[in-house]
Amino acid sequence: MTFKVFSELSYQVYMPSTFLFNIEAAQTNGQTIIEEQLTTNIACELETLISPSGTRFIRTTINEPQNFKVTYTATVTTHHQLIDEHVTNSVTALSNIQADILPYLFPSRYCQSDKLQRFASQMFGNLVGDYAKVVGICDWIYHNIEYLLGSSNSYTSAVDTMSERAGVCRDFAHLGIALCRASGIPARYFTGYAYQLQPADFHACFEAYINGTWLFFDATRMIPSNGLVKIANGLDAADTAVTNIFGNTYCNYITVGCHLVDGKTFKPLNAWENKDLALSYG
Amino acid sequence: MTFKVFSELSYQVYMPSTFLFNIEAAQTNGQTIIEEQLTTNIACELETLISPSGTRFIRTTINEPQNFKVTYTATVTTHHQLIDEHVTNSVTALSNIQADILPYLFPSRYCQSDKLQRFASQMFGNLVGDYAKVVGICDWIYHNIEYLLGSSNSYTSAVDTMSERAGVCRDFAHLGIALCRASGIPARYFTGYAYQLQPADFHACFEAYINGTWLFFDATRMIPSNGLVKIANGLDAADTAVTNIFGNTYCNYITVGCHLVDGKTFKPLNAWENKDLALSYG
Amino acid sequence: MTFKVFSELSYQVYMPSTFLFNIEAAQTNGQTIIEEQLTTNIACELETLISPSGTRFIRTTINEPQNFKVTYTATVTTHHQLIDEHVTNSVTALSNIQADILPYLFPSRYCQSDKLQRFASQMFGNLVGDYAKVVGICDWIYHNIEYLLGSSNSYTSAVDTMSERAGVCRDFAHLGIALCRASGIPARYFTGYAYQLQPADFHACFEAYINGTWLFFDATRMIPSNGLVKIANGLDAADTAVTNIFGNTYCNYITVGCHLVDGKTFKPLNAWENKDLALSYG
Amino acid sequence: MTFKVFSELSYQVYMPSTFLFNIEAAQTNGQTIIEEQLTTNIACELETLISPSGTRFIRTTINEPQNFKVTYTATVTTHHQLIDEHVTNSVTALSNIQADILPYLFPSRYCQSDKLQRFASQMFGNLVGDYAKVVGICDWIYHNIEYLLGSSNSYTSAVDTMSERAGVCRDFAHLGIALCRASGIPARYFTGYAYQLQPADFHACFEAYINGTWLFFDATRMIPSNGLVKIANGLDAADTAVTNIFGNTYCNYITVGCHLVDGKTFKPLNAWENKDLALSYG
Repeated sequence: MTFKVFSELSYQVYMPSTFLFNIEAAQTNGQTIIEEQLTTNIACELETLISPSGTRFIRTTINEPQNFKVTYTATVTTHHQLIDEHVTNSVTALSNIQADILPYLFPSRYCQSDKLQRFASQMFGNLVGDYAKVVGICDWIYHNIEYLLGSSNSYTSAVDTMSERAGVCRDFAHLGIALCRASGIPARYFTGYAYQLQPADFHACFEAYINGTWLFFDATRMIPSNGLVKIANGLDAADTAVTNIFGNTYCNYITVGCHLVDGKTFKPLNAWENKDLALSYG
Repeated sequence: MTFKVFSELSYQVYMPSTFLFNIEAAQTNGQTIIEEQLTTNIACELETLISPSGTRFIRTTINEPQNFKVTYTATVTTHHQLIDEHVTNSVTALSNIQADILPYLFPSRYCQSDKLQRFASQMFGNLVGDYAKVVGICDWIYHNIEYLLGSSNSYTSAVDTMSERAGVCRDFAHLGIALCRASGIPARYFTGYAYQLQPADFHACFEAYINGTWLFFDATRMIPSNGLVKIANGLDAADTAVTNIFGNTYCNYITVGCHLVDGKTFKPLNAWENKDLALSYG
Repeated sequence: MTFKVFSELSYQVYMPSTFLFNIEAAQTNGQTIIEEQLTTNIACELETLISPSGTRFIRTTINEPQNFKVTYTATVTTHHQLIDEHVTNSVTALSNIQADILPYLFPSRYCQSDKLQRFASQMFGNLVGDYAKVVGICDWIYHNIEYLLGSSNSYTSAVDTMSERAGVCRDFAHLGIALCRASGIPARYFTGYAYQLQPADFHACFEAYINGTWLFFDATRMIPSNGLVKIANGLDAADTAVTNIFGNTYCNYITVGCHLVDGKTFKPLNAWENKDLALSYG
Repeated sequence: MTFKVFSELSYQVYMPSTFLFNIEAAQTNGQTIIEEQLTTNIACELETLISPSGTRFIRTTINEPQNFKVTYTATVTTHHQLIDEHVTNSVTALSNIQADILPYLFPSRYCQSDKLQRFASQMFGNLVGDYAKVVGICDWIYHNIEYLLGSSNSYTSAVDTMSERAGVCRDFAHLGIALCRASGIPARYFTGYAYQLQPADFHACFEAYINGTWLFFDATRMIPSNGLVKIANGLDAADTAVTNIFGNTYCNYITVGCHLVDGKTFKPLNAWENKDLALSYG
């Protein structure tokens, strides 16, 4: 599929402020960036930083009080892999994870997997195979957590969601990740542009590391599983925030869009409807 | 200084269990490992994994129920740098941190810097220069948090310590890191073998990234600043735990030691007594 | 002073719902209710329940889906006592509190005084006399907690406010209460109609039990200390909520007003400006 | 049944300290205190305070540094009522609870029922009748929370237990109370001396208010339901602690015992084994 993605973030800057944006399509094997454009309403230097985990951050400093607007557009072709059922019927024991996967097994700011180990063991411990466990985790979240705009805030973590039982996509992803890690399965946060998301916004979901591949999961079931353009992976929302700002600013608005360029041919794949269908965004 | 370090961890294994140990001296420019030895009481395969942040994890899987004991000894010479006052009188703004430093600026499992930003700004915002801020943070922790064995547990985070006002070295380090990050200063966890620590144990402290160098800080003031052999750096205790275990085991005991090989010449440097003296472990 | 107070709460009722309102002026020695009127837009039975701590709850059940509106107006004359400095220079030790005061010494839902004992001891332990301690607590809150609309929600407790350092009147009151109790001083929540509060709303503050009298404190400094009509006292916001609803409803709006009937003679008393001036609402 | 209960609490007093003990058998219709004796190892004045909710607190102040020991023994005959199934098949809606029951419907320090409302509604909302709901809550707790000595501490609340899934009797009671209140059912904490509890200790369980009667529930299933002598009821452990101390003391030991005087006739009633059997301690 080829998508045209778009975002515009507008700020009032009051004092010298440094922005770190995380809005560009990820440069991975799973998608080809056909063209992209990052523009600002004023002249300023834009610097690209690639974090150790591969995230492209855009950094800029605005020194004068003024309106500052950054606009990103890109045309991206995604190439998901469909993963065979037999491949997924395996166990990624701690005993055979490579070193670079380890960080995704530990608890993080919003995914306190250490506190959820008994629950994970109780609820998903008997499911055979890592893929079945993660499918079970997503099903459980979908059926037990209410998707409710406004029910959480930037401090809300997986443990909060566990007791309060409501959240938005970010919270669904955090809880999914926490329960995977608590089950011994590496998992990472995934932010992206999402096709058919209502209301339009950045989306958050997650990937679990199974049999050597990062597989895609989205417990919200709000968009087709093949409707995403990846922006970044990370431990959780802490290291993949759309914007980190040091300074004094006011956000006027954020607008996000994701449209299909070749719309006629789009066949939605809803991974949750077919337990044998696993998707990888590479 | 040259130290002889030692640790022994003994477990009763009930079911097949995978261990991930983080007890070896770190391989950094700041210290030379003259000799080291890792032995176990039974024949087993020990695998070394170097995580993305440089931590040496030792992995092994014990399949039979039995007593399992791992013993590490090493002789390590440390080479601290003393950092000049003028160098430290600078500001590491978000605008000039390299990409590989960014992860240490974000909130993590035990260091929820996002929740402590108003406090950090209130209390340390007027101090001029990053070094002065971190010194201020350590002084504040030392004077306001009670060092009390048994007052915290493995779930305790910087936010808990902030209200409960008691903790152990791990909690002092987490709070220091959280307050640095909340002040815009990258900070990372530091675990090590500590000379003259009473009672003998693994020690935790932290490093802050100032003017391009990771400087050493220890808000506990329990050991001389030059009395450490570094084991690992990480975001916090989540990715630098002494042991991660997947399985069913019981810890019989953990013994830790750190002795000076050239004891007569040891001159303790207590960084907190001289605000112009900054130490880097490399 | 004589005030005219007013509140109107409007709900869309979807399913049979029981309301428990806590909006009527309190019947205490400290104020005389000259006239009051409670009306609803539909015929329904209104029942009054006086809780063990003296709160007047209005209970009603609406069985049909419809708009439901309750309106309260009252004219109330308040009689504060001004308490002499010498009287306040005393210590209310646990050893001489009567039994009915004890509940206000224990931690409650939003006032986890148990977790703040070390902080209270550190910060206020050296102040001599209970009155000086509570004045110190209010001053500390005023100077260290930012009053910021939208910074907290219905789950926010004193421990959260302690680390996040922002809140609204409710949070200021909860933290004040928690720190009093942590200092061994009984304290209770106080809700009321407030003169000159901007924007108009129900207000929350607190009372501390000193030398046998409940003295008034408001760490927000937003309204004159003599500008309140008391609605209720309680352990915290948990038992004095403006509305408890069991059912399925949507709140259309809440309007609150407090006007002076004898406006020309109003002389604001700002207790925080004169440390010898203590006020009791009886 | 007639029980002989016993407790001894021994402290080293360092500075003048006031103790508030909550160890005497409750004076309720549900039990007759045949004889009781409260003694101390030193001469001191013991004062009895009856709190608004009926708890008998013993207060004493020890001014000199010394060993202080309080010993309580009593012979108590308990009279439980067995409640008929039909009576329990009812709904205690907020619309018909008396005023003095209201406090037990609100969230409290350790029972944050506000945060657990969605979960309670999800899990127990479809059970018909309050008695069935509370039985469902106890069964759920018994099957999902691990009884594990040392897994919690004095700060642990129902919300913590909800995610961490382990606790002791106190935590089981707090979670039961929180889930009842979140389901619209008043519930209160119950502390007592327990027959056949291993290891011997004070016990905590809870009562739910159903059809005008406080019914007994114990989600731990550790002792026979008819094996208790009540000490106190309260909102939660915050207002029914065995000891509140203001001062500086060290607890040497606490010893607790509960023996049957007429042992031969004891027939254990395990309420959880018979869903039609409800017990009231009056």
